[in-house]
Amino acid sequence: MDSINIKKLAEALNLSTSTISRAFRDNSDINGVTKERILAKAKELHYQPNHYASNLREQKSKTIAVIVPELANNYFSQAIHGIERIARSNGYHILIYVTDDDYSKEVNFINHLHNGRADGIIMSVSGEANDHNYLNSFGSKRLPLVFFDRIYEDIKTPRVITNDYNSSFAATEHLINQGCKRVAYMVINKSLSIGKTRMQGYIDALAKHHIPFEENLIIDCSNSYEENSIIVKDALLQIKPDGIFTSVERLAFATYYACYDLKIRIPEDLKIISFSSLEIAPLLNPSLTTITQPATEIGERAAKLLFTILDDHVDKNLSTEVILDSKIIMRNSTSNRDKID
Amino acid sequence: MDSINIKKLAEALNLSTSTISRAFRDNSDINGVTKERILAKAKELHYQPNHYASNLREQKSKTIAVIVPELANNYFSQAIHGIERIARSNGYHILIYVTDDDYSKEVNFINHLHNGRADGIIMSVSGEANDHNYLNSFGSKRLPLVFFDRIYEDIKTPRVITNDYNSSFAATEHLINQGCKRVAYMVINKSLSIGKTRMQGYIDALAKHHIPFEENLIIDCSNSYEENSIIVKDALLQIKPDGIFTSVERLAFATYYACYDLKIRIPEDLKIISFSSLEIAPLLNPSLTTITQPATEIGERAAKLLFTILDDHVDKNLSTEVILDSKIIMRNSTSNRDKID
Repeated sequence: MDSINIKKLAEALNLSTSTISRAFRDNSDINGVTKERILAKAKELHYQPNHYASNLREQKSKTIAVIVPELANNYFSQAIHGIERIARSNGYHILIYVTDDDYSKEVNFINHLHNGRADGIIMSVSGEANDHNYLNSFGSKRLPLVFFDRIYEDIKTPRVITNDYNSSFAATEHLINQGCKRVAYMVINKSLSIGKTRMQGYIDALAKHHIPFEENLIIDCSNSYEENSIIVKDALLQIKPDGIFTSVERLAFATYYACYDLKIRIPEDLKIISFSSLEIAPLLNPSLTTITQPATEIGERAAKLLFTILDDHVDKNLSTEVILDSKIIMRNSTSNRDKID
Repeated sequence: MDSINIKKLAEALNLSTSTISRAFRDNSDINGVTKERILAKAKELHYQPNHYASNLREQKSKTIAVIVPELANNYFSQAIHGIERIARSNGYHILIYVTDDDYSKEVNFINHLHNGRADGIIMSVSGEANDHNYLNSFGSKRLPLVFFDRIYEDIKTPRVITNDYNSSFAATEHLINQGCKRVAYMVINKSLSIGKTRMQGYIDALAKHHIPFEENLIIDCSNSYEENSIIVKDALLQIKPDGIFTSVERLAFATYYACYDLKIRIPEDLKIISFSSLEIAPLLNPSLTTITQPATEIGERAAKLLFTILDDHVDKNLSTEVILDSKIIMRNSTSNRDKID
């Protein structure tokens, strides 16, 4: 029993190996009763078809690769959950790759994936400042690819994004309406398009309210926890904003820590609003006002887009764009009451 | 160029296909200069060896599967990060599977993985209350398997765990030392061994301090957010604990929400300590005292154990046990000062 293979299974059933093989393929032309018999006997004898052999035949790995810049981020873990749900309901597995926001890792992963390991890729990109033409070098052999959240504008492929310009405009306006006069915008690597789009919403909201834009109110942070801690403290002490809009949640956390250290009171001295999918935002001290993206839904929509390419053979080079709305959830970090309970 | 294959590459280089093929295998006997030449030409012509064909030959997928009960949990996302780091440095990919704490999904994943898709499995289990002998049914064909955190005691395979008994004893004692007289223990499904081990530490710490154990101070919760909200509120109102030790972080969050609603002050009326890997525990209102497991290190150690089996052919059925220590980090949720700043 230890050495059960397709030949022995075929002998045990008095059938041909090709009939056995067909029973393990979906959509194959085989009598239902025969198929049942084969599957029952296979189970009894602990036979499993070899994955690689059968995939080599079908040229399908039934696997989707998901590439994200980081895992320890509520947005990405929720998005992956959404992708995983749709993948599973389609009988697909998912491979997860984390780039740590490193462009060379992204290129490396993508190259490796083009050898049959995955049928398609869902990616939130890490290399905006770099040359992303490497994706075009595969020509017609490029795997079906769907971008979500962080995208390359110049690569023709479907994408799922949120309306970041509108959300950022609304977030900035919210701070102004709560009485802020000096609103800072905090971003990681401001040259990236997602940061730029969000910054444009900020700039236009200031203009609408006749507040002059000041370059030094743009606080450009890094990916390093230690560096950000210094950058944020310096900014709070030197440019003295009374409102901060942060493009990613970990900059809001860095600002909270800095305020605790510097005895700056939130929201009395400084109001904070941040893009964030943190489920426990209401438990922070004070509770954090958030722009919350529908992360799980974004993941689900991205996976569904990929399956329309894989299953329905829709052209993979269409720049279909799905735009979902985020929600501003007001909490105490932007309250304008004199005293918070 | 669109149809480059191994034959055309061989022709372009005036070499045999088997020489080409060897250049893409690790540890193969091929002249270094020739190998360089082949790889350079392959790059130029955008040739990638077919993953399935080469794996069929080598009988290796260079993939590790990681099975976890949930992703939206800081402990598991940090552990996966640790696994991913070691896997990558060994040239392996990781597949991630989420069971949502559903035993039938776990069995399904494990069965699927035994068809060549992965070379080994790292798992935190979901089926403690069920029959886990299904893992023995593979006999000698069972894939190398390493458990972490949540394990099946009766399956002989390496495991990485933390010293939960000691941590739970210390956590309970900490609450007693901070003045608590009625300490409750909050757990999800108390029949599971990880919950039981933690409960035993709680019971023994009470005994040491001559506090009688009361069955109704064990609060048995569920996996549902809505149900827990009701269970926790009922418990706070009816059994009126002055200290709570929770076995997983989301029960601490549920307790915070319940206390906000019921106007129970933390830590004045109720002190809370929880197992948690939440990096922003200091930002909660009040900051949360945690028992913090070395999650990333646990992932790394589990991956290293798996590679000793895969690379060094160490017996996969050894019950090697690696036990790591957790740390209690005291914060305001268990402070015994009369007034918190």
